[in-house]
Order: sequence, then C-alpha cells, then structure tokens
Amino acid sequence: MSDVLKSLYQTIQERKTADPENSYVAKLYARGPAKIAQKLGEEAVEMVIEAIRLAEKPSSAKRREALKDEAADLLFHYLVVLGQNDIKPEEILAILESRMGTSGLEEKQNRSANQ
Amino acid sequence: MSDVLKSLYQTIQERKTADPENSYVAKLYARGPAKIAQKLGEEAVEMVIEAIRLAEKPSSAKRREALKDEAADLLFHYLVVLGQNDIKPEEILAILESRMGTSGLEEKQNRSANQ
Amino acid sequence: MSDVLKSLYQTIQERKTADPENSYVAKLYARGPAKIAQKLGEEAVEMVIEAIRLAEKPSSAKRREALKDEAADLLFHYLVVLGQNDIKPEEILAILESRMGTSGLEEKQNRSANQ
Amino acid sequence: MSDVLKSLYQTIQERKTADPENSYVAKLYARGPAKIAQKLGEEAVEMVIEAIRLAEKPSSAKRREALKDEAADLLFHYLVVLGQNDIKPEEILAILESRMGTSGLEEKQNRSANQ
Repeated sequence: MSDVLKSLYQTIQERKTADPENSYVAKLYARGPAKIAQKLGEEAVEMVIEAIRLAEKPSSAKRREALKDEAADLLFHYLVVLGQNDIKPEEILAILESRMGTSGLEEKQNRSANQ
Repeated sequence: MSDVLKSLYQTIQERKTADPENSYVAKLYARGPAKIAQKLGEEAVEMVIEAIRLAEKPSSAKRREALKDEAADLLFHYLVVLGQNDIKPEEILAILESRMGTSGLEEKQNRSANQ
Repeated sequence: MSDVLKSLYQTIQERKTADPENSYVAKLYARGPAKIAQKLGEEAVEMVIEAIRLAEKPSSAKRREALKDEAADLLFHYLVVLGQNDIKPEEILAILESRMGTSGLEEKQNRSANQ
Repeated sequence: MSDVLKSLYQTIQERKTADPENSYVAKLYARGPAKIAQKLGEEAVEMVIEAIRLAEKPSSAKRREALKDEAADLLFHYLVVLGQNDIKPEEILAILESRMGTSGLEEKQNRSANQ
C-alpha cells in the first residue's frame, strides 16, 4: 500500500515542472494554489454526494463504483495540495499515528481545545 | 507508510462497534452515513481554507501546521467514509495506480468521457 | 430588491424547458438534480475561498469584486436548486422571518434540538 | 419579499456589536471571518446533502422540509458573510440583474473568459 501512495506523490512532484499541455498535474499547478484548493473542495463535494447516493441504495454496485471513483479523485487532488506545499503524506500519517493512541473522541476534544 | 494507513483503517473498523461514549469513530457511525458524509465535506472546507491561508502567507510555520492538522482531519474522516462502506484504502490506491500509467490529463479526460 | 429576486426566480423557472444549447439554466436542468446540487457545492467553495482571500487583504477592491461575483454565482445556483424543487424563495424567506423574532443563538439551538 | 431580506440583513448588521452570549450573529462575528466563511461552506454541504436526499425520494414531505430548513440556514449564513464585509444584498442582486439580460449560458462563458 505504501508504495502506491509514495510513488503517486513522487509522480505528482515530478510533474510539477512538466508541460501543462501534457500533464493534468502541471496544468493544475500552473493555475495556482487557489485553484488547486478549489479543486480539492469540488472533489470533496462529489465524494459527499456519492456517499449519500450509496447510503440511499447500499446494494447498488454502480453507486459503489461511483463512490470509489470519487474517492480516488479526492485522494489524488489531496496529494496535489500536499505536493504544492511540499508536505509529504508521511507527515500527515505521522500526525494520525500520534493521535491513534488516544480514543478518537478524546483526540477530537483535544484538538478543539487547542484551537 | 503502509502500516499507518492500514492500521488506522483497521482501528476505525474495530471501533465501529465500540461504545459511542468512549470512541469518536463509534459516535460518528452511530449518527449514520449522512452525518459521516457531512463531516467529510466539513473537513474538506477546513482544509481548503487552510490551504488558501497558507498560500497567502507561505512562510508562516503556524499556517503550515494548521494545514497539516486539517489534512490529518480530512484523511481521518475520509477513512471513516470508506470504512462505513467497507471499502479498503487499498481499493482506492489500486484505482489510482491503474490511472498512473497515463498522464493525469488524459486520465481526467477519460473519466469525463465516461460520465 | 424583491422584484429582482422574484423575477430572477421566474426567469429560472421559465428556462427549465428552454433549449439546453441556448440556456445555461436549461443545460443545468438537463444534467439532473445531482449535478445541480454539485454546482451549488462548488459555487459555495468558490465563495468561501474569496471570503478568505478578502479577509487576508480587506482593502483590496479586486478581491471585494471577486467575492461579490462569487456571491452572485452562489445565489444564482441556489435559486436553481430551489427552482428544481419548485420551492419559491418566498418560502425560505418566510422561514427566516419566523426565526427572526428569537435571537439567532436561541434559534440555532432550537434547530439543533429538533434534529 | 424584499422587506424580509432587507430587514434580516439589517438585523444581522445590528447584532454585529451585540453580546456574543445572547446573539448567534455576534458569536459568529466574534470568531472571525475565517470561521464565518467556514460556516458558509458547512451549511452549503448540508443543503447539497438534503438536495440529493430529496432527489432520491421526491415525494417525501419530510425531506422537502429538511431541504427548506437547510436552504434557510445557508441563506442566513450567506447574509452573515455579506454583512461581515458590509456588502448589501442589493449589490449582489444588481449583479444578477445585469446578467439577466443575456442567457445564463453566455453569461457563464463571459465570466470564465474574464478569470
């Protein structure tokens, strides 16, 4: 699993300087950080919608595939936002790992208290 | 990297049946799939905001940390949506892996054509 | 003010059955309710981003105009979602009017208690 | 219709300086523009979800009411974002009015060309 996430992130980083005509990643970077963040938001909306649609019809294989496709889109654009800021996915996983010892509930309350 | 993502997902799955009083994950599951999807959308909004804020002030270590914290929150709730539907992160990574051969741009166009 | 909101909504309703080639509203309706809802979410993301950007640079006339443009886009697509469901803006304003007697805080708490 | 929108906006403006303990609006303003923008995004996610849910079950009176409630929440927080920036709803309606002469499709294309 790690190899895919790591190599995808590396590919994204390598394509930062590619020709925007040939690379979707390079095209995103060329549009600037605000547009990249916007894409993240849009993909999240699409995943939310597919999650709701699958919840309405849990046995639908088509909706299940649609959710997986949107989940892939969201993760991809998530990695682009990280890459844009040179934040490695390992750094995010380390944060989650450090939170994992406590129950999620406590963790969330801790975070809220810090804000 | 794989171990963290995999073990976090497993922890989330295990906590599905925990006491909502003690586990944030169990509490989320108890609220139902629509609320879980809603949380995903809300966390995405927060990550978008922090990405914009960091873009406005790229040298701010505080904003960089804020973005990482929100990125961790989003990934966590992303895994909860997957877990709610018993979709393993490996399945999503496999989709991304299969897309990686083609350029992102071609891939995106292919997807659009299929919709 | 009422005339604009009312006539815009009426125009949207009239264009439901127009040729999608000539009318953006008809094109949206042709894509179905899920895509219309998705557009609402996307426009909200854009308004959120411009609100954050203006907050970072409150004296920027350009950002102020950008926020107003996105606010117009969001209100337009908001009316399309209402129109798609034959909900008149008056109905929404009536809900807000009935809430206005109580303080917003009480109102919000009341709503939460009902959910 | 205008009176409600106008008086709601005026009420929001008046409550900017109220005690955050007693006024939800004052409480929002006290949290700052980023939190106000975040609330707008969150309310949009909720309206998107209810629009999808109603589309799945168009005859459900309960879901129709839920969509109207979320639409009211979104419009309220939309006005708060405007109020935070001293943008009057009339200004947004004027933008929409000026766009109304052209077909929505042309208008959208015009906007894209300007970005």
